[in-house]
Amino acid sequence: MTVPARGAGEGQEAVEILATARALVDPELCAAVDSLPGAMRRVARYHLGWEHADGTPAPGNGGKAIRPALVLTAARALGGERETAVRAAAAVELTHNFTLLHDDVMDRDTTRRHRPTAWTVFGDAAAILTGDALQSLAQRVLAADPHPGAAEAAVRLARCVEELCEGQFMDCSLEGRAPDQVTLDECLAVAEAKTGALLGCACAIGALYAGAGREAADALDGFGRQAGLAFQLIDDVIGIWGDPGCTGKPAGADLTARKKSLPVVAALTSGTRAAGELAELYGGPPGEDEPARTADAVERAGGRDWALAHAADRMSGALGQLAGAVPDPESAGGLLALAEFVTRRTH
Amino acid sequence: MTVPARGAGEGQEAVEILATARALVDPELCAAVDSLPGAMRRVARYHLGWEHADGTPAPGNGGKAIRPALVLTAARALGGERETAVRAAAAVELTHNFTLLHDDVMDRDTTRRHRPTAWTVFGDAAAILTGDALQSLAQRVLAADPHPGAAEAAVRLARCVEELCEGQFMDCSLEGRAPDQVTLDECLAVAEAKTGALLGCACAIGALYAGAGREAADALDGFGRQAGLAFQLIDDVIGIWGDPGCTGKPAGADLTARKKSLPVVAALTSGTRAAGELAELYGGPPGEDEPARTADAVERAGGRDWALAHAADRMSGALGQLAGAVPDPESAGGLLALAEFVTRRTH
Repeated sequence: MTVPARGAGEGQEAVEILATARALVDPELCAAVDSLPGAMRRVARYHLGWEHADGTPAPGNGGKAIRPALVLTAARALGGERETAVRAAAAVELTHNFTLLHDDVMDRDTTRRHRPTAWTVFGDAAAILTGDALQSLAQRVLAADPHPGAAEAAVRLARCVEELCEGQFMDCSLEGRAPDQVTLDECLAVAEAKTGALLGCACAIGALYAGAGREAADALDGFGRQAGLAFQLIDDVIGIWGDPGCTGKPAGADLTARKKSLPVVAALTSGTRAAGELAELYGGPPGEDEPARTADAVERAGGRDWALAHAADRMSGALGQLAGAVPDPESAGGLLALAEFVTRRTH
Repeated sequence: MTVPARGAGEGQEAVEILATARALVDPELCAAVDSLPGAMRRVARYHLGWEHADGTPAPGNGGKAIRPALVLTAARALGGERETAVRAAAAVELTHNFTLLHDDVMDRDTTRRHRPTAWTVFGDAAAILTGDALQSLAQRVLAADPHPGAAEAAVRLARCVEELCEGQFMDCSLEGRAPDQVTLDECLAVAEAKTGALLGCACAIGALYAGAGREAADALDGFGRQAGLAFQLIDDVIGIWGDPGCTGKPAGADLTARKKSLPVVAALTSGTRAAGELAELYGGPPGEDEPARTADAVERAGGRDWALAHAADRMSGALGQLAGAVPDPESAGGLLALAEFVTRRTH
């Protein structure tokens, strides 16, 4: 099984949804960030891709805005108006960016969205404090929102942050272990907490803003969570075999950093001969012919095929949850398009 | 002017208020922390003094609970019931502890409340993530509180966190400068943001929980903020001349770390001959006869006297704000007792 190629026009609906979400949410996001005290505003504007390190305007590449698009699209899928959920969508995007700022500090990652990470430019303390302020700002945006779903959304978002932190905590502890001391279940739990939780929360918050009850919100959480896991699996595949010009990260950076990504751990625990080779490679420092040799071992051990098949399983689970909560295919169409877009992307 | 000695019985009212606040807030605080995912719960329970590093129960020394006591006492001063503000008080205390966890990481402080700081025991990532989770938990407690003042309290608390972060940001930038490149106004701004803001916010939230309007909440914010500055000035004095057995920090640690605390900067900018001596001492590495020699230079340059006089000025400003918002002396008595307690303490 390979990453399916995207036909002409395929994904067009998702591209339009993402562009509309960006256009709706960016002014709210901008106003929120500009309400921060000066020092952190500057770091936040840099991190979001709006400014260069010297404070001059940048063309802007703040990511694909998948999470705010999920909030708005979920609200619409359940009969709400996208416009009423714009603040909530901004709060979710602020939360996402807070976790990126902190994760980059902890993981010592030096590149994000094709640019040096904030801590490498402004220092650890600046990145930690700006992350703290963005978390605070996200909750402030919700607390100041008179929408009747705002308080429940704030509770869900806070719980989600706690899950994200737990995921990052587990991830840090896995990074400290030998490659053969990590199970695939542990890695899946990390991926669910670090990626699935916020995508699920975005959908659930959209549902709450459409006036949906707990059951529908939970089902949409399940949809986003499963789709998020599929997304992470594909992202890990791209992290090994993707084009660095598109991913924004150096080729094979995950392998060179010895990250225990899902395809790698699937390969390591496959019981194949290639698994042994991979374990030996991963146990030592990166050699001269890395990451090509390591990537080849992961592939021969079945890590790539497993990840793609497992992503398909999770997508199938996601679609089941979606169909339960939103039986009308036309209403569910936008969420479906987004889920397919993020899990079929080749960039 | 010297630190006023406390007469027998003086401060007794404050001691009782603090004990009552502890008793009311601790169960809420405990339940909130226990709702965190496991890894961060453990770090939080250690940081709060409830457990040893190995997870066994500790006698408990989670600080003096001044902030939750201010919330409850402010609510009562404005005609509310203390009991209705218990969740809000817990949220403020969680917020305080989140900032302590992060500040200790950034400042590389190794001792807090007589114990090794969380990052020295569990690592930087664990301390950062537990701080993140405590911030989230504080907002979750407020978002889940059906009290009509909760949303406005959440907005104020979030803004306060942003101010705290800005204060720490400024503080980090001051630490990087030469001692003669820091003004007293800058140091006072840091102290107001780092200490005054949360004490003020605690009082304002108490007012909101008593059903008070924005004006009364702002006045109580001003009271807490000014009293907080007085508190910080006294704390800085104790940090230099206090008994390490009581402060929980090694003697003169602030001086050895070359911290630009308020008495030190007042001394450095005093234009006295002792200021020159101090600048020379502070410009070099800690010598053998430190911190006694440095403390002596700060005192001869008038740093101690200035701090105590300025603390008295701030207290006077605080009392003016309090009298404006709570004209009845009996109603204002509890807040007055707390403010006097924290600014007259010799421990």
